[in-house]
Amino acid sequence: MRIWEIIATPVAFRDPPLLNATGVHEPWALRTIVEVLTDEGLTGLGETYGDQAHLAKVRAAGRELVGLDVYALHDAYARVAASVGNDVVTDQHGLTGAGSNQKTVDAVYSPFEVALLDIQGKAAGRPVADLLGGAVRPAVPYSAYLFYKWAGHPGEDDDRFGAALDPEGIVAQARLFIEEYGFTSIKLKGGVFAPDQEIEAIRALRDAFPDLPLRLDPNAAWTPATSLRVGEALAGTLEYLEDPAPGIDGMAEVASRVPMPLATNMCVVTHEHLPPAIAQGAIGVLLSDHHYWGGLVRSAHVASLCETFGIELSMHSNSHLGVSLAAMTHLAATIPSLKHACDTHTPWQDGQDVIAPGALRFEGGAVPVPDGPGLGVEIDRDALAKMHEQYQRCGIQRRDDTSYMRRFHPTFEPKKGHW
Amino acid sequence: MRIWEIIATPVAFRDPPLLNATGVHEPWALRTIVEVLTDEGLTGLGETYGDQAHLAKVRAAGRELVGLDVYALHDAYARVAASVGNDVVTDQHGLTGAGSNQKTVDAVYSPFEVALLDIQGKAAGRPVADLLGGAVRPAVPYSAYLFYKWAGHPGEDDDRFGAALDPEGIVAQARLFIEEYGFTSIKLKGGVFAPDQEIEAIRALRDAFPDLPLRLDPNAAWTPATSLRVGEALAGTLEYLEDPAPGIDGMAEVASRVPMPLATNMCVVTHEHLPPAIAQGAIGVLLSDHHYWGGLVRSAHVASLCETFGIELSMHSNSHLGVSLAAMTHLAATIPSLKHACDTHTPWQDGQDVIAPGALRFEGGAVPVPDGPGLGVEIDRDALAKMHEQYQRCGIQRRDDTSYMRRFHPTFEPKKGHW
Repeated sequence: MRIWEIIATPVAFRDPPLLNATGVHEPWALRTIVEVLTDEGLTGLGETYGDQAHLAKVRAAGRELVGLDVYALHDAYARVAASVGNDVVTDQHGLTGAGSNQKTVDAVYSPFEVALLDIQGKAAGRPVADLLGGAVRPAVPYSAYLFYKWAGHPGEDDDRFGAALDPEGIVAQARLFIEEYGFTSIKLKGGVFAPDQEIEAIRALRDAFPDLPLRLDPNAAWTPATSLRVGEALAGTLEYLEDPAPGIDGMAEVASRVPMPLATNMCVVTHEHLPPAIAQGAIGVLLSDHHYWGGLVRSAHVASLCETFGIELSMHSNSHLGVSLAAMTHLAATIPSLKHACDTHTPWQDGQDVIAPGALRFEGGAVPVPDGPGLGVEIDRDALAKMHEQYQRCGIQRRDDTSYMRRFHPTFEPKKGHW
Repeated sequence: MRIWEIIATPVAFRDPPLLNATGVHEPWALRTIVEVLTDEGLTGLGETYGDQAHLAKVRAAGRELVGLDVYALHDAYARVAASVGNDVVTDQHGLTGAGSNQKTVDAVYSPFEVALLDIQGKAAGRPVADLLGGAVRPAVPYSAYLFYKWAGHPGEDDDRFGAALDPEGIVAQARLFIEEYGFTSIKLKGGVFAPDQEIEAIRALRDAFPDLPLRLDPNAAWTPATSLRVGEALAGTLEYLEDPAPGIDGMAEVASRVPMPLATNMCVVTHEHLPPAIAQGAIGVLLSDHHYWGGLVRSAHVASLCETFGIELSMHSNSHLGVSLAAMTHLAATIPSLKHACDTHTPWQDGQDVIAPGALRFEGGAVPVPDGPGLGVEIDRDALAKMHEQYQRCGIQRRDDTSYMRRFHPTFEPKKGHW
């Protein structure tokens, strides 16, 4: 069975004004839906970033894959690598670490790999999880991913989530998410306010939810010294502290001196980062992400590597839609060593999706593994068309939280090792 | 599709008197053929060691797998681990490194995993290589695996390979293997004679085959100081030097000071050995072996880990039959980073096999990847029955090269860090 055609459709969906160390989410989040069509009529789905530079690389690579056997993943990877050449696409938002050629190749390859596994699963009549060794858990727990946020985008009505700019707002947001989704662990995106304010927010969450694991992720907004101070202040309170300081060196300086594991999706984002991070003992938890670790199989390989070196696993999330949630769930269900709840932005998409409803749901904060075959999700053609039209109209071609923030706060500077 | 029944059949086949650091091969080599039968009529094949202690663990673990879905590899691994418990099976021959609980679990699990992949491939109508990302090479190169040997087993007629007890004998053996199989690289099993004699054999091979990569494997028979001396003496002559000295510490002492990479299938034989070996820079090439690295998928994971850390890959071999050769070939065909020819004992089995002829052949020293479906090999029932009868009659229940050597040389001592 061979690849007949590949269609990459950029889409946009509404995103609330979520604050982070580099600015604030724009009113529209971008993604690309990849459909791989075969000569035998089966179709596979993948999902990846929607930024224009990435989309162009996905489309160029896709042209090189036409005619390829749907099982030829290594060949597909080599063709993608050849298509990308020596280029490096760096994320503009600065939240997922340094760009590199390998990270670029892996990110371009990822949606094709997911789509090919979707096809393989459909051909075998089995869920993608079965192609990864079978689910070891019937459902994948996700965390309540809290953000400081404005009440609404400037000039628009407040959104239904309302403002969260202090500990009370964060606790209220957590209550809403837990009520609606049943989450049993909580992550707070930090790096927005001075560290003491974010410590207070974590303490308020601890008081309100005494039994739930808590995480704080300031996206490397702190110096190592501040990271140490916060780590000590939150001793016994955090499941892990995520990317407090920039770089492998900065993380290593902190890691051995704080009482909780350090997690990252910033200082270790591609294979070349693993040896130095391991040699320096910089991280205790890797937040893997199949979107930039080269798809599901390669992410499973990274998971094994982490297990070998005693590094725990969690999963990173950017704003995403249901194809990615399905892929994340199939993968996470099959990693025996995954002990932490995964991150997802799903609540923030607030029901918007390109997939037909019903395939994915949260039960007690966890997503049951779709039965398949394949990913077990299907495109909602009307929704895809609508979201593509939104992409064409929204005027955003690459995510840029900083520029959007500067429209309202012209002197804003991204916070990297700032506090 | 679920596992209906598992049959583990021990077999014995004739093996020549091949010499190594721990003694000499006995007249019969043992293996176990594992057949996994499903409720839908498909059957999968695996092959593993035939030593009694291992066979007992395979049979016990197999009983725990009945009823399991054929895609549930992680679950199968967990059941095998539970069945093995805290036990450790140490190889008696001392040639594949220290025993450990994980190595024991991985070794017991391996034939089941291969058999389940065989079934998955048959169900999908695709070769096992396709389940591992697809072949990146149409055929897998193997090396001419030379041994010092006696002309025949004591008290028996000479075998057709004849004696090889000096450089001339080794060169003649190489000529025979290359003529019959077309090998394009050569490995000499050393650790038999004093290092200077083995240096001379390598130099004779270099003179006779100026263009072929050469390897020497004394199975840790040397001290680090001797390893350095041999390494310097063979500068520019060896593709790699395999396990010159015992242990990660010993190898690390040698690795940075010899001009060729060090390879191992002794000091790194399970996951727990990887972190210290990497930290100490002990090895440049890992000889993986799916029989003790937990099957094909887990071996692919190890291959990725090695690529991440800049460790090259080759493949180790014990005496084996065609099910294993098929599995090795499917795996090796799908590892992009595998650049060295793999080891195989196939010439020494001299046509004896449990599989029906025709599925596997050597062309130019390489085995074309079987088309499948699955492994692409089938049991020859008559051959299996004959080899099982040989197992029952041969009187050998575990490999013990040292005791067999001592029948003829009562004062023989295994050579570990000896010279």
